[in-house]
Amino acid sequence: MRRGQKGHNVKLFPKRRGAVDRILDKVDSPSDIREMNLEQLTRLAGEVRELIIETVSHTGGHLAANLGVVELTIALLHVFDARDSRILWDVSHQSYAYKILTGRRDEFCTLRQYKGISGFTKREESPYDHFGAGHSGTALSAALGMAAARDRKGGSEHVVAVIGDGSVGCGISLEALNNLADVTERLIVVLNDNEMSIASNVGSISNYLGSLLANPRYNRWKRSVEGFASRLKMGWFRKVYYKIEEAVKSLFLKSVIFEEFGLRYVGPVNGHNLHALIDAFSIARDYDRPIILHVNTQKGKGYQFAEESPEKWHGASPFDIGTGELKKQSGRPDYSHVFGVAMERVAERDDKVVAITAAMPKGTGLTPFSERYPDRFFDVGICEEHAVVFAAGLAAEGMKPIFAVYSTFLQRAVDCVIHDVCLQKLPVIFAVDRAGIVGDDGPTHHGVFDIALLRCVPNLTIMQPADEAELADMLNTALALKKPVALRYPRGRGPGTPVKDELQLLDEGKALVVKEGRDVWIWALGDMIPAANEAAHILEAAGISAGVVNVRFIKPMDKDLLKTHAGTARVVATLENGVIAGGFGSGVEDFVNGESLPAKVLKFGWPDEFVTHGSVDELFRKHGLDPETIAASIKKVCHAKDEA
Amino acid sequence: MRRGQKGHNVKLFPKRRGAVDRILDKVDSPSDIREMNLEQLTRLAGEVRELIIETVSHTGGHLAANLGVVELTIALLHVFDARDSRILWDVSHQSYAYKILTGRRDEFCTLRQYKGISGFTKREESPYDHFGAGHSGTALSAALGMAAARDRKGGSEHVVAVIGDGSVGCGISLEALNNLADVTERLIVVLNDNEMSIASNVGSISNYLGSLLANPRYNRWKRSVEGFASRLKMGWFRKVYYKIEEAVKSLFLKSVIFEEFGLRYVGPVNGHNLHALIDAFSIARDYDRPIILHVNTQKGKGYQFAEESPEKWHGASPFDIGTGELKKQSGRPDYSHVFGVAMERVAERDDKVVAITAAMPKGTGLTPFSERYPDRFFDVGICEEHAVVFAAGLAAEGMKPIFAVYSTFLQRAVDCVIHDVCLQKLPVIFAVDRAGIVGDDGPTHHGVFDIALLRCVPNLTIMQPADEAELADMLNTALALKKPVALRYPRGRGPGTPVKDELQLLDEGKALVVKEGRDVWIWALGDMIPAANEAAHILEAAGISAGVVNVRFIKPMDKDLLKTHAGTARVVATLENGVIAGGFGSGVEDFVNGESLPAKVLKFGWPDEFVTHGSVDELFRKHGLDPETIAASIKKVCHAKDEA
Repeated sequence: MRRGQKGHNVKLFPKRRGAVDRILDKVDSPSDIREMNLEQLTRLAGEVRELIIETVSHTGGHLAANLGVVELTIALLHVFDARDSRILWDVSHQSYAYKILTGRRDEFCTLRQYKGISGFTKREESPYDHFGAGHSGTALSAALGMAAARDRKGGSEHVVAVIGDGSVGCGISLEALNNLADVTERLIVVLNDNEMSIASNVGSISNYLGSLLANPRYNRWKRSVEGFASRLKMGWFRKVYYKIEEAVKSLFLKSVIFEEFGLRYVGPVNGHNLHALIDAFSIARDYDRPIILHVNTQKGKGYQFAEESPEKWHGASPFDIGTGELKKQSGRPDYSHVFGVAMERVAERDDKVVAITAAMPKGTGLTPFSERYPDRFFDVGICEEHAVVFAAGLAAEGMKPIFAVYSTFLQRAVDCVIHDVCLQKLPVIFAVDRAGIVGDDGPTHHGVFDIALLRCVPNLTIMQPADEAELADMLNTALALKKPVALRYPRGRGPGTPVKDELQLLDEGKALVVKEGRDVWIWALGDMIPAANEAAHILEAAGISAGVVNVRFIKPMDKDLLKTHAGTARVVATLENGVIAGGFGSGVEDFVNGESLPAKVLKFGWPDEFVTHGSVDELFRKHGLDPETIAASIKKVCHAKDEA
Repeated sequence: MRRGQKGHNVKLFPKRRGAVDRILDKVDSPSDIREMNLEQLTRLAGEVRELIIETVSHTGGHLAANLGVVELTIALLHVFDARDSRILWDVSHQSYAYKILTGRRDEFCTLRQYKGISGFTKREESPYDHFGAGHSGTALSAALGMAAARDRKGGSEHVVAVIGDGSVGCGISLEALNNLADVTERLIVVLNDNEMSIASNVGSISNYLGSLLANPRYNRWKRSVEGFASRLKMGWFRKVYYKIEEAVKSLFLKSVIFEEFGLRYVGPVNGHNLHALIDAFSIARDYDRPIILHVNTQKGKGYQFAEESPEKWHGASPFDIGTGELKKQSGRPDYSHVFGVAMERVAERDDKVVAITAAMPKGTGLTPFSERYPDRFFDVGICEEHAVVFAAGLAAEGMKPIFAVYSTFLQRAVDCVIHDVCLQKLPVIFAVDRAGIVGDDGPTHHGVFDIALLRCVPNLTIMQPADEAELADMLNTALALKKPVALRYPRGRGPGTPVKDELQLLDEGKALVVKEGRDVWIWALGDMIPAANEAAHILEAAGISAGVVNVRFIKPMDKDLLKTHAGTARVVATLENGVIAGGFGSGVEDFVNGESLPAKVLKFGWPDEFVTHGSVDELFRKHGLDPETIAASIKKVCHAKDEA
């Protein structure tokens, strides 16, 4: 059935229509949607979908997820008063249609651009964004808080949490689900079931949802009754229908897990059938108990290429609409890919090596590993805490687990890193991908806190490579260290250094001088080394002899070398793609001050504020982390020292 | 029935029996338990219980939980070969009997003492401690890791996770439960259901467990068949019995939630009936699918006072066995109590104030608040992440949520503090109790990381009071700030300053000079001020003029005052009950160095290692954080500066 709709979709967007006759242009606020009829809503869905594809083809963004919820969003805004209701989007990467229809249609072209519309909900962006997000699994908890506040204030507004099937298995969602019945008697949960979170979904709840859909007898019955129901317009019948449906369902299926948590369950509803959605949401709106609507949607709906490869189109870079080809395809693999290759290399020679991901096999570069070593690969779903403790359990039994995780998502598991891995000195390796500013995705996704969060944890070695070859060598070294190790590397591409035929072992705690110097030493972490080199050349041109160090080990740092440098140079500058407070530079300062060494320590990194979204280059420049500004700051201190 | 057993228990321990005829003395390793008959095991249970009560009456410890699992532990060690099997205790505060019976009987008298036996499982303490813990909800994840390792290595050992009913609702446990069926086909979960975690339990799963037990028809049937079964010794009947039981259960009860997660469910089993436990564990041992045994136990079992008030006896200080009275009762309330009083004060005048706890109403001092304002009090269970996001949801709707949580448990929710509260600048207050070293409970419970973890987070104000009155004023101030605030205070008692009749508002970012000085300024956080004062007096006696500052605001710090002090004194010393790396002193050093101020910064706090258990005084002395050593270190730097 899904396949059959492709032609229909292609017809909808042969090319961008003129803006003149768009019904979308009549939607200045969501209240305009409340009066529309089914035909108008259907047209609106087509136009919203078109605008999303058009915009994302220029800006990049979460295409597949957004195309999947166009009808769901329109039906929500048709049934619920968006001024009063609290509509919460879990993760909120699927909120594009919502943004377009809640007063941000004209700014939508600035999506993910510096100073433009955020790719996620953001309270300060719009009064319709009731809760911001970016990480999974928070909507249900936040919705419970809002419902509890409403109940205590005597309000009557609806609280609606839209949550994906992948996010339901996340610990916070499950904690919230378990608390739901205690906290409120009125809440609407929309389970957006696209049978995958980012990768194909895992876990029992997910299988459970699958089994609901798979029972052919139930589905036959449901289809025939639905056909009958759709021909009736009477509200009372809809209610009777759902009551009967529930009774019949229990004959065919195992009892429904959500009912155990105190939620009335309705579904599955076809998430691309506006009529069915409006019916279901109307029932939910008028229902006086917590209710969950199980809605089936298709990721990428309406754009053939995205329908076919939704994981590829999860987070897309700019692309050609007609051919579906990404515009900036570079032949050079990114760090995640190199990590995946290195994983295969170390796994070849050691069958104790196992890989873990929290629903990010492709993003972390582990897909080839997972195909080659399916028995040594664990996708635990969006469960970073479980992933870390699970890794600790594997390590306790002599396995060599490597958990590949984005820096920002490792924040979820800080306690497990401390309490389960480092306290027990278990040899778990954290491959901390997307460490540093990530650009367009903005503050929920920037990986700027990991050094500050991890540097205070005893027994942990922290490394960052300067290039692809060093990444592979560091993975090799981490395995040899037989202790907890965090290996951080940035989003995107490195300089392109090929991985060595024979992986090397680095000396723990030893830095590498990249360029000799005398007056100034710039200690730079991995991805900041090019900026350090440029700054050093600017300084040399100004008559200041500046050396550059590839730090390699953030912890333990190379104290011997630092002692020499801080004992002889005027300035030791630290460059890191992370927050300054508690970061690597803070460790350097601690040592230099503790040893009473004469050099002035100058720390470059991100300030004490949340950094907005925008291109990485823009953000670096704006915060004075470009080579010119860095060199100028160092020069100023050198001159001040000369004068002193 | 439970009440009726009290007399029996009192008979078991009229007073400590001589060690001469103890069967316990024959248990040098758990293999000795495997050969014992029911009568011997019953005697053993009595003696173990006696030893636990006797020891904890001297050392303090988790009495109620340990008395509840004596039979469960003995039955486990009778049925499973403890050398090969991996027995994991969730939280592991209930592992005393296990420790006594796995080679630590004679050292057990050193429980929780410096260099003695830990109050939790600890891998380095014994080869029988397969996984250490202290925080809730990790056992199932770790067990999955161990089972996955076994399956891949082709091993046959049993992996048994013992987990309390409160821990099942914790996010990590739920994540693990949801992953279970994907990871292994053989795992034994023992659900130790004492109908409470620390406080009475919350959440749907908990209610669900309750409903299993509450069905009278089912229970009548079960009792009569059990009576029949216990008279038969034949193994095959036990198996048939459990098959029949399962079938019957499904007639009486709703379908069992654990079955949805792929676990065969058996229970409930009487957790104080050794025969029933051995039967059930034998079934589990021989079963070839994941299985959950639901065991009902009574906290405090066998010690009348603990049976009656299990929450009071959760973590007990030394007590008199005969009277049940705690030995070191002080009239002065501790910080948690003062916090609870302050909460009532601020709630009186503002009905938007609501309190949240994660299963710690008594520990955080919130019990009186919960009784007075039941509608403004939320115990979410052991769900710190949900608690924080839930608070964010409440705050987004204009409520004023205060989440009272131990420092070490807030580690669980670092990402939610960053992503949900601080990024959105939502006015959530974190009352961070047990901040700093906690003593006997050791490294899993020391609250030494919170400053380092929180100081790097933008938009967050962090305070620490010097005394009880300031704690109340700071709570008042935090509410007035209308932004994210963390208010940290230590375990135990303050100096005893009464809370003011009229709560004060402190100036954000302003420190308070406690004692004037000239050569040295000691900037001390709250509980370190007495040590700072003492050190200052020692320095004065040596002719060094030393001032003391009550920091009050860890962030934002009082830069004006610091500029003056670091501009004029020889030394600025920082004193904090937290790790040095990334701590408060690190912020002071950053500023002093950034401004090129002449004073030398000396930082006192906990080093880069996990601090063991022991008395707080011992630990402070051992790490040079006593006034004498602090003064000596400062003096040395002053002299060095004089010479320079």
